[in-house]
Amino acid sequence: MATPRRRRRSNASPRDREAMAGRIPQLPWKQPRNPYAPLKVISDDQVEAIHRASLRVLEELGIELMSAEGRALFRAAGAQVDEASQIVRMEGALVEQLISTAPSEFTLTSRNPDKALHMGGDSIAFGMVAGPPSVHDAVNGRRSGNMDDYENFTRLAHHFNAIHIIGNQVCAPVELPANSRHLDTYNANISLSDLCFHASAIGAGRATDAIRMQAIARGISLAEIADSPGVTTIISVNSPRKFDDSMADGLIAMSRHGQPPVVTPFTLMGAMTPVTLAAGLTQQNAEALFGIALSQLANPGSPVVYGAYTSNVDMRSGAPAFGTPENTKANIASGQLARRYGLPYRASPTSASNAVDAQAADETQMAMWSCTLGHANLQYHAAGWMEGGLCASYEKFILDVEMIQHMTAFLDPIEIDEGTLAFEAMRDVPTGGHFFGSPHTMDRYETAFYQPMLSDWQNYENWELSGAKTATQRATDLWQQALREYEQPAMEPAVREELDAYIATRKQEIGTGDP
Amino acid sequence: MATPRRRRRSNASPRDREAMAGRIPQLPWKQPRNPYAPLKVISDDQVEAIHRASLRVLEELGIELMSAEGRALFRAAGAQVDEASQIVRMEGALVEQLISTAPSEFTLTSRNPDKALHMGGDSIAFGMVAGPPSVHDAVNGRRSGNMDDYENFTRLAHHFNAIHIIGNQVCAPVELPANSRHLDTYNANISLSDLCFHASAIGAGRATDAIRMQAIARGISLAEIADSPGVTTIISVNSPRKFDDSMADGLIAMSRHGQPPVVTPFTLMGAMTPVTLAAGLTQQNAEALFGIALSQLANPGSPVVYGAYTSNVDMRSGAPAFGTPENTKANIASGQLARRYGLPYRASPTSASNAVDAQAADETQMAMWSCTLGHANLQYHAAGWMEGGLCASYEKFILDVEMIQHMTAFLDPIEIDEGTLAFEAMRDVPTGGHFFGSPHTMDRYETAFYQPMLSDWQNYENWELSGAKTATQRATDLWQQALREYEQPAMEPAVREELDAYIATRKQEIGTGDP
Repeated sequence: MATPRRRRRSNASPRDREAMAGRIPQLPWKQPRNPYAPLKVISDDQVEAIHRASLRVLEELGIELMSAEGRALFRAAGAQVDEASQIVRMEGALVEQLISTAPSEFTLTSRNPDKALHMGGDSIAFGMVAGPPSVHDAVNGRRSGNMDDYENFTRLAHHFNAIHIIGNQVCAPVELPANSRHLDTYNANISLSDLCFHASAIGAGRATDAIRMQAIARGISLAEIADSPGVTTIISVNSPRKFDDSMADGLIAMSRHGQPPVVTPFTLMGAMTPVTLAAGLTQQNAEALFGIALSQLANPGSPVVYGAYTSNVDMRSGAPAFGTPENTKANIASGQLARRYGLPYRASPTSASNAVDAQAADETQMAMWSCTLGHANLQYHAAGWMEGGLCASYEKFILDVEMIQHMTAFLDPIEIDEGTLAFEAMRDVPTGGHFFGSPHTMDRYETAFYQPMLSDWQNYENWELSGAKTATQRATDLWQQALREYEQPAMEPAVREELDAYIATRKQEIGTGDP
Repeated sequence: MATPRRRRRSNASPRDREAMAGRIPQLPWKQPRNPYAPLKVISDDQVEAIHRASLRVLEELGIELMSAEGRALFRAAGAQVDEASQIVRMEGALVEQLISTAPSEFTLTSRNPDKALHMGGDSIAFGMVAGPPSVHDAVNGRRSGNMDDYENFTRLAHHFNAIHIIGNQVCAPVELPANSRHLDTYNANISLSDLCFHASAIGAGRATDAIRMQAIARGISLAEIADSPGVTTIISVNSPRKFDDSMADGLIAMSRHGQPPVVTPFTLMGAMTPVTLAAGLTQQNAEALFGIALSQLANPGSPVVYGAYTSNVDMRSGAPAFGTPENTKANIASGQLARRYGLPYRASPTSASNAVDAQAADETQMAMWSCTLGHANLQYHAAGWMEGGLCASYEKFILDVEMIQHMTAFLDPIEIDEGTLAFEAMRDVPTGGHFFGSPHTMDRYETAFYQPMLSDWQNYENWELSGAKTATQRATDLWQQALREYEQPAMEPAVREELDAYIATRKQEIGTGDP
């Protein structure tokens, strides 16, 4: 079989040169756009039915809002606030009026303006896993989160172009003081990568530290970063229908500084919502709209993201499940809801698997397809998520990067023109022949197809000869190689100095107190 | 955490009773319908561009047709036939006229009329892997195809409701005489299962044996089965642009008997077609339309399926790849082409992986999503396919059944009505509370969510205590359990006798000659 191997050296593409140098091949940095129409799993009438049911929840049942400042904002806007129960109720018309000032898109800018992220429309940003207490890799086993692993994951996020944004604490560095470790993780995000990142918004202090450090890294003022946001955060809701104090205050702080909170009810059907998808989506929508309204009360016109995380629990054990058929439908329907309100949309391609195995790939793919078909602008927890979010895995990270790259290549539209239709090439190859040596092939083969980094396409015999490694075993080689290939992005000494000074001052201020 | 476990026994659903009896849970038999709109990866104008380019290929370049009977049919219809090169060329108008008699849908009926398959519209049938020379399971290792494994795979296909149709020789029973082994495999299909199956169409003899045996099993005549088809077959094209003798004659025989051939060019871009998707789709379309035209010449109005198998090769080695981003786009675009002609559509969710690992799940999911989004009516090779089709795997079969069930559950539309919107249930649970004990949950939890058979949703500690098995290791347990649970479907003694007599006679006729 004639293959064009011989001609490769003379006319090598950057990707090919990477491969020749033994480096891991990867797609170039870009933020994917989804050129295809969003899928609909419910009709427009059904979207309206969920919308109306959500407004009824906000009108008649209300949301418990533990933040006194938040309640004062709602009261001033005309909502009914019961100070004893801390429950806020409001007319549907008020909800719609409040959320109407939220922008449909915005740009999130890191210290590298080439890696600015468009949030909204058909754009997608794939984000790292965030929040696991544990870490796993096949070489060193399972362990508690720690700063060394935090830094390695941050290096991997920077190294792979597939990753666009770093989550809030890819793993928890538990050896560091809980009240100031956010300063160390922000520092790692900013120093070891040049990506946008996600602040911890447990209280206003942690949120403002992230904003100030990102402003320093970009060499701009707090006023300037308010007009050009650079960090985001997830505001989780204590579903059903409860915003706790620190998350609400974090949300308010982020919005006041013009940074986009991602309001995400964690609505596990059967546990935190009724057991039906219609109710899960209704409750998610009510809670999300409430948080979005609060962001607009804090700062009308400030950016905010509609977050969705409706999945189901295992009804035998209460354990959460992800990438299930119900989660898949919810991810797509939630996109329909977010678009109804003209809001950027966040969802998550995650899995409940305890091993980096076929289940992990299956569930993550179910969820990633639904995030993509639902036009989620932020696919959060998209790389490294294991054990339902309780563990960050190096091998899963590699698998996820491969799956993200598959999806990214799928989103490259088919080119149809005279050159690609290739009538002459077909004419010149006899019936039953082959196209390996065709000039049309030679001119295009280097970039015609996505070249995998993890998938192994050898035949069985060659695969066996090269060690019969599973994808997970190959992933172990790849994350180690990526850490060797990693190059730390440069930083101006003045910025370095200012960041170090800020961190030192803040650590002193915080002491053992509240951040 | 209060779970509703206690109430399960009193009010058990069939699925729950299965679980209580320790049986593998599974969805009930049904043929899924896709309620969502097909995805478009190319515009309607681009569909027309590929259509026109395909007609140009048929007009100017033509197709080599090795069957003399086929050439005579085309010549009589007005095509230009060059007998020296055996190349058939025809005007686009003639192609369009010939394919116009093909029906847009039909029903395929096995000996169990409850398992009749609708082919067309939004219906989906998931089929077994077909054709691998080798077999693998984790207990017994890799081996050549043989009749014992053939029978076991057929039992598994019958046992799992997710499987709707049996492929042509799920593995090759190489210990049996090549010229009569099709009789043994047809017999296994008909005896060990009651599903529709797929005939070998290498020559007319093997095709008519399948049709006659299926007619005997159904107790109907050859004339009756011509009006109510019961077997199908894949007609592969020797791409580029060549139909060999035996496949063309098999196609003609199937169509004359009213049985639907699935005309499937195996168009691996870079090898059998130019390296571009536009050209791969054009050539696939030209070859498929040619075969469909031949089926209609043989028997106007007879059922036929538009088959697509456009994927890419690894340009470094020439090895075929599946479930790639390019294959994914081709599967969806091919659905757009099939719908343009109003034809039922076949595609395949396959993988190149050599192990039942994360790569196998990833690639198969990429392809299965695209088959589903492209509204493929027949998802062929959907269970058990490994090593790019060179091996049938027991563990992959189990993984695939789980993935098919995930997709089937995803295709169940979300119900939105007063009951599922559950306002009262939300009202009755306090903020921050849970819904485990809610009457709304108790009434619905048993059927609210898909219950997996392979996915393990335990937390890490319990998963470790139960052996820390990967999905692949659990699959080994499951196929063995399924074989223990399998029950052979009953058959009338008279039918048994007639089948045995037919097989004995045919084996004598064939001897060592041509089937």
